[in-house]
Amino acid sequence: MNERIIGIAASGGVAIGKAFLLVEPNLTVIKKTISNTQDEISRFHLALSEAEQELQAIRNHAANVLGEENAAIFDAHLLVLSDPEMLSSVENKIKAEEFNAEAALQETADTLIEMFQQLDNEYMRERAADISDVTKRVIAKLLGVNIPNIAMINEEVIIISEDLAPSETAQLNRKFVKGFTTDMGGRTSHSAIMARTLEIPAVVGTSKVTSTIKNGDLIIVDGDNGEVLINPSKEEILLYEEKRSQLEAHKKELSLLKNEQTITLDGKQFEVAANIGTPNDVESVLEHGGEGVGLYRTEFLYMERDALPTEEEQYQAYKEVLEKMGRKPVVVRTLDIGGDKQLPYLNLPKEMNPFLGYRAIRLCLAEQELFRIQLRALLRASNFGNLKIMFPMIATLEEFLEAKHLLLEEKQSLQKQGFAVAENIEIGIMVEIPSTAILADQFAREVDFFSIGTNDLIQYTMAADRMNERVSYLYQPYNPAILRLVKMVIDAAHAQGKWVGMCGEMAGDPIAIPLLLGLELDEFSMSVPSMLKARNQINQLKQSEMKKLVDKALGMQTSEQVRLYVKEALNIE
Amino acid sequence: MNERIIGIAASGGVAIGKAFLLVEPNLTVIKKTISNTQDEISRFHLALSEAEQELQAIRNHAANVLGEENAAIFDAHLLVLSDPEMLSSVENKIKAEEFNAEAALQETADTLIEMFQQLDNEYMRERAADISDVTKRVIAKLLGVNIPNIAMINEEVIIISEDLAPSETAQLNRKFVKGFTTDMGGRTSHSAIMARTLEIPAVVGTSKVTSTIKNGDLIIVDGDNGEVLINPSKEEILLYEEKRSQLEAHKKELSLLKNEQTITLDGKQFEVAANIGTPNDVESVLEHGGEGVGLYRTEFLYMERDALPTEEEQYQAYKEVLEKMGRKPVVVRTLDIGGDKQLPYLNLPKEMNPFLGYRAIRLCLAEQELFRIQLRALLRASNFGNLKIMFPMIATLEEFLEAKHLLLEEKQSLQKQGFAVAENIEIGIMVEIPSTAILADQFAREVDFFSIGTNDLIQYTMAADRMNERVSYLYQPYNPAILRLVKMVIDAAHAQGKWVGMCGEMAGDPIAIPLLLGLELDEFSMSVPSMLKARNQINQLKQSEMKKLVDKALGMQTSEQVRLYVKEALNIE
Repeated sequence: MNERIIGIAASGGVAIGKAFLLVEPNLTVIKKTISNTQDEISRFHLALSEAEQELQAIRNHAANVLGEENAAIFDAHLLVLSDPEMLSSVENKIKAEEFNAEAALQETADTLIEMFQQLDNEYMRERAADISDVTKRVIAKLLGVNIPNIAMINEEVIIISEDLAPSETAQLNRKFVKGFTTDMGGRTSHSAIMARTLEIPAVVGTSKVTSTIKNGDLIIVDGDNGEVLINPSKEEILLYEEKRSQLEAHKKELSLLKNEQTITLDGKQFEVAANIGTPNDVESVLEHGGEGVGLYRTEFLYMERDALPTEEEQYQAYKEVLEKMGRKPVVVRTLDIGGDKQLPYLNLPKEMNPFLGYRAIRLCLAEQELFRIQLRALLRASNFGNLKIMFPMIATLEEFLEAKHLLLEEKQSLQKQGFAVAENIEIGIMVEIPSTAILADQFAREVDFFSIGTNDLIQYTMAADRMNERVSYLYQPYNPAILRLVKMVIDAAHAQGKWVGMCGEMAGDPIAIPLLLGLELDEFSMSVPSMLKARNQINQLKQSEMKKLVDKALGMQTSEQVRLYVKEALNIE
Repeated sequence: MNERIIGIAASGGVAIGKAFLLVEPNLTVIKKTISNTQDEISRFHLALSEAEQELQAIRNHAANVLGEENAAIFDAHLLVLSDPEMLSSVENKIKAEEFNAEAALQETADTLIEMFQQLDNEYMRERAADISDVTKRVIAKLLGVNIPNIAMINEEVIIISEDLAPSETAQLNRKFVKGFTTDMGGRTSHSAIMARTLEIPAVVGTSKVTSTIKNGDLIIVDGDNGEVLINPSKEEILLYEEKRSQLEAHKKELSLLKNEQTITLDGKQFEVAANIGTPNDVESVLEHGGEGVGLYRTEFLYMERDALPTEEEQYQAYKEVLEKMGRKPVVVRTLDIGGDKQLPYLNLPKEMNPFLGYRAIRLCLAEQELFRIQLRALLRASNFGNLKIMFPMIATLEEFLEAKHLLLEEKQSLQKQGFAVAENIEIGIMVEIPSTAILADQFAREVDFFSIGTNDLIQYTMAADRMNERVSYLYQPYNPAILRLVKMVIDAAHAQGKWVGMCGEMAGDPIAIPLLLGLELDEFSMSVPSMLKARNQINQLKQSEMKKLVDKALGMQTSEQVRLYVKEALNIE
């Protein structure tokens, strides 16, 4: 069957390869009475040892590719497999009650899982999840079916799945996974952002790839146009192979800009920086010619754990990033948790509108001890590089002043204890709430810099959740209202001699970059793979012309008018 | 015990009276084996007839006070009481299984409720709720306890409850209910808004009135200061009685302004209008000297029903309001559903952030047939008064143009069919999304008027859910960012010769009114009881001075600075 499915273009490029369906098989267990209990017990042990071999292989692969700390989850799974209490319970059910092995295991696991889930302890509830995962794996072996595992892929494939969890995207091996396409998700969902970071072409939100595509189908993912081709014709394959070669040649060309400056044809210099999540990302920032880190998201330090990270753990992470970046600036954002990013161990109450709720600086100012630990870790690391600190979700001036006050208190206390702390650390804020953009002239007197977080700023200014497909048409970066807010922020900062960065999706967008040049944005911070493209684009424009361009855009009525105007004026495809 | 509890001042005035605890009693059923089954069946029938008498009384009371349509729910309850299948099932359980009547009824009801809930039909699921309500009432009779009922209060009381549902507030009889106080809620929760509409003093969000106060305690509710006094001393009673008399005298004085104009000392005229929900509210608008209706919330027509209202039902409601208001303007807001206001029969998907979701005009433009019916009803009613139509939650110019296009299409089609439709109906929009305020100059060319909806505008501009207690400190009407947005909207409208109203809480706020006068807002629309107070305040101010006042406020840094400045400058308590 030759078919073309339309989805959302989530990560650019062309990928061609065999389909790998990452869909869980049917693991329904049917309870039977068996006669030869000894055979059944052997069958159970065979399945256990197959599952153990598989888990061991996944564990080793994860340790090699992602580091030992990411392999720990599989160690926990392996422990479950050899739990004597569980094993003897299953064997008893087979021997005494003549259950088939699948049913005996399922019943044993269900009892254990229920017991753990009722405990008022996050750690124990996670054990329930471990048991559930392992049980599925053994039952699959007993049923003779395979649980497809993203970490075990060892040939070039295109992944087809309903959605990809952040933990699954983290296991993607770029050597083999050439592209992916999903039923769900949007351009700003986590899997889409991850795909751009890893430079893997991706089409999401197709609503039907898993039900249409079969394992082994030949697939083309066109991540620029949001198209998925199933079993394409020879002509189509040739066409897309040609396109892929062109893209690769272009990428090679771009890599020549790695050590160049970012400077317009009329000689205005800008900074292209990276958004990162962990110290592991720094290497790639430098490879892609990043002039700094414009946004270090510290949440990752707090996620996928059972408790808050210690001051020492945080200090080590911040120090590593600062040292690796040398004298290049590193803007660290303090904890931005809440909203769609939860920490189970904080036990935060469920909210009706989490995006308008108790999150980021609001939470940090209320839970001061948690916040002070992070501030201390940052200050202790400050001597190892060029650190700048920024606070997220600032809505009022009082919030900024209070956060700054806590930072200065911790600085004094550290200095009294004899720690070396850098002098003149710049302290700034994210501008991602409309009130702060509108009052930017007042904030500019107090802060050292602004970084405009467009993902949230657009969502609040348009009153539309960007994750909600029914209103995602209102996520409009080129809306003149957004451009006007950005202008207010930049003009207010420059009037006070302060600099302004941008760290939302918009900063790396080829339609937005010319407008932002015209508005005199100082620093463009974006996902790593976009950096060289952005530099290449900026180096071919004149700022004086972009000022005229944006002046006209600011007076337009709709986002669509601006988009068409910029595309036409600059001949952007 | 003499105690004072602090809460949130939700509705002004002083109330003194006996406590009436509106808290559901413990209805736990204990299953027993009984010996004399015939006695048990008699006991069951006695409870049934007591429950029937009670329900009949509530039903008649509701019909008298609120109209027949509001009594329908109790007719449904009465039907459940005489359902032969249910009765025989309970009797069988008593006879055959020797259950006590409570347990027999509970088991029968549980089975029925579970059955109805599993049906994929909203109507049937509501039957499950009816059965549950009725079962509780009969079990209470069997247990010899009382379910307190708000509609049956027949002496002067202060209501004490955890929270008040909109349906409960609707049943409040002002003759007997002198005030209320709740554990939960905030200043802008539905019960608080309703209390202000009904002019009943209220203190909400105390977190402990139900656990502290006992039935029959003497209670003082000070709705201006957010205080609740339990069993006050003689001196305290005298003090508050004095305060209450002063408030009543002041109210009487205000009522003299009923037929006056709203005009500043320097001769600038303004309009004070009302926010209403149903045609029943109009009488009170005229009694309180309303110069118009600035916001007619049409959602109430769609709520507490099983299906959409017909064109004819809507037409009758709109016509009634327009006729009663005579030549005074009536601004009707088209359907603003979604967010915290759901219509079960529309089966809308659950959203992660409903306030940033699929609601109001977004829904109406997607569900055009639903929208067209409302537009037709409005157009047909337009000849009976001074109708103006406005669209809620407009975020982009395209949305307004599309809504206006649909309106004009329906107008043409009605005229072709021979209906009389008023010419020159003004068409405006709510400004409640930051993008629309920021682009007001562009919108002003297209619309006939703006009405600023501050409740939502503040919530989006500050990125804080006003219903969420942890972030409600960010609901800041006096924040200079909000004042600047309001100024942008008013200046943009006046530059095009258009008028601007405001229909959020802020329009009736004594601190905000002087600032809004200075910004040259044209129409102040508010809850009915605030109107005369607002007129009285405006009539004592000079606009020229308020312009200076607001100029200074616009340059301030925080909401608190503005609040203190206005209070001091104008000597407001």
